[in-house]
Amino acid sequence: MTTAATPTPAYRRLGVAERRSQLLVAALSLFAHRAPEEVSLDEVAEVAGVSRPLIYRYFPGGKQQLYEAALGSAADELKLCFAEPQTGPLTRRLARALDRYLTFVDEHDTGFSALLQGGSVAETSRTTATVDGVRRSAAEQVLTHLGLAGTAGPRLRMMVRTWISAVEAASLIWLDEEKQPPVAELRDWLVDHFVALLTVTAATDEQTAVATRAALALETPDGSAGVLARRVLPVVAEAAHLL
Amino acid sequence: MTTAATPTPAYRRLGVAERRSQLLVAALSLFAHRAPEEVSLDEVAEVAGVSRPLIYRYFPGGKQQLYEAALGSAADELKLCFAEPQTGPLTRRLARALDRYLTFVDEHDTGFSALLQGGSVAETSRTTATVDGVRRSAAEQVLTHLGLAGTAGPRLRMMVRTWISAVEAASLIWLDEEKQPPVAELRDWLVDHFVALLTVTAATDEQTAVATRAALALETPDGSAGVLARRVLPVVAEAAHLL
Repeated sequence: MTTAATPTPAYRRLGVAERRSQLLVAALSLFAHRAPEEVSLDEVAEVAGVSRPLIYRYFPGGKQQLYEAALGSAADELKLCFAEPQTGPLTRRLARALDRYLTFVDEHDTGFSALLQGGSVAETSRTTATVDGVRRSAAEQVLTHLGLAGTAGPRLRMMVRTWISAVEAASLIWLDEEKQPPVAELRDWLVDHFVALLTVTAATDEQTAVATRAALALETPDGSAGVLARRVLPVVAEAAHLL
Repeated sequence: MTTAATPTPAYRRLGVAERRSQLLVAALSLFAHRAPEEVSLDEVAEVAGVSRPLIYRYFPGGKQQLYEAALGSAADELKLCFAEPQTGPLTRRLARALDRYLTFVDEHDTGFSALLQGGSVAETSRTTATVDGVRRSAAEQVLTHLGLAGTAGPRLRMMVRTWISAVEAASLIWLDEEKQPPVAELRDWLVDHFVALLTVTAATDEQTAVATRAALALETPDGSAGVLARRVLPVVAEAAHLL
């Protein structure tokens, strides 16, 4: 029938999963750029081209439930950022993961800040658990790149989790500073931060030392670690009195 | 009169400021070791040895207002942690500041986690602003130790703010890991983290490079930076192919 081929966009028949996902996409597009308290269900309905009651059919808990579900789908996307083939220099893998992560931050700026800076009415123990899930997953994936998923000792795990927090904090500062410096500079600095933290942790933790040696062996002179090494050398050269 | 010399502890006459501070001390002693939702006004009254109505006379907003005031006084205490004479090696100053900070964390463990891990019902835009005030103050004090309060460029400010966040994140992980490693090890690692981050930031930021050279010149072979330098050397020596 011709009517089936040209449905009215507002109430086009969708399967349950497809409709749910359409509502989440609409919700996320709004929650990405405004604090949750500034988004209304009516707007979500308008962007999705559906009625408000239809949203309640899928999300009986209303805006809070929709927010948490949208956050869940954003979290799934973020977890994929650090998934990366286990080949090549570590700094190159981290740079690619950070490129994806920072693109996500850029595209969800206000929502990202509102969620992580705290004090939002939409923040609950469930949203906190979702955010923690992303951090844990990112840490696991970084440990996998170090060849130590599941076997990393407490010091190395603390180091990786601390770096993940530093990445998050730097992203918030970056948003706060109107996205300065350019994203590629921020990414390179975060990679350098990782290399630095790994190296000083290696100074007191044998497992980290083994992992650092293995990671440095894969680095190339023209890669991030090479550039960093040559730039750091003149700075530390003046500290010869410490040796 | 003898009665004036031996007042009943429960309703001993205190000045307004003294009474308010007594209530805050009692509140903080409870909020330090339990999540805010697990502390009742009755308990605060009991610990302070006063009646519940008397608490309302000082804090008409009840528990939330008392919580925010207790947080405010804890924040004032935390801000003092990084205040330190501007003399001697930077790593020694940071170590002393961190000793005070980590002692505070240790003594306010559950309250610290509940506040910073998010999702607490007591968290509001005001509590978030209080916490941010502590972070900003700590960052300013660190920049003062670098001789650059008020004149630090964006990269150096981002570096210091990111390190402050890393200290906070590491403290939360430390609490989560049942206060392991021993606090002195955590402190030394956080100082090493600072030195590492300063050094790699110096690689791409001229102002940071100048500050790093000046800071390293004040370090001594038997201090943290000396120990770190000698321990890092064998790890990075294997990366000679990068130079």
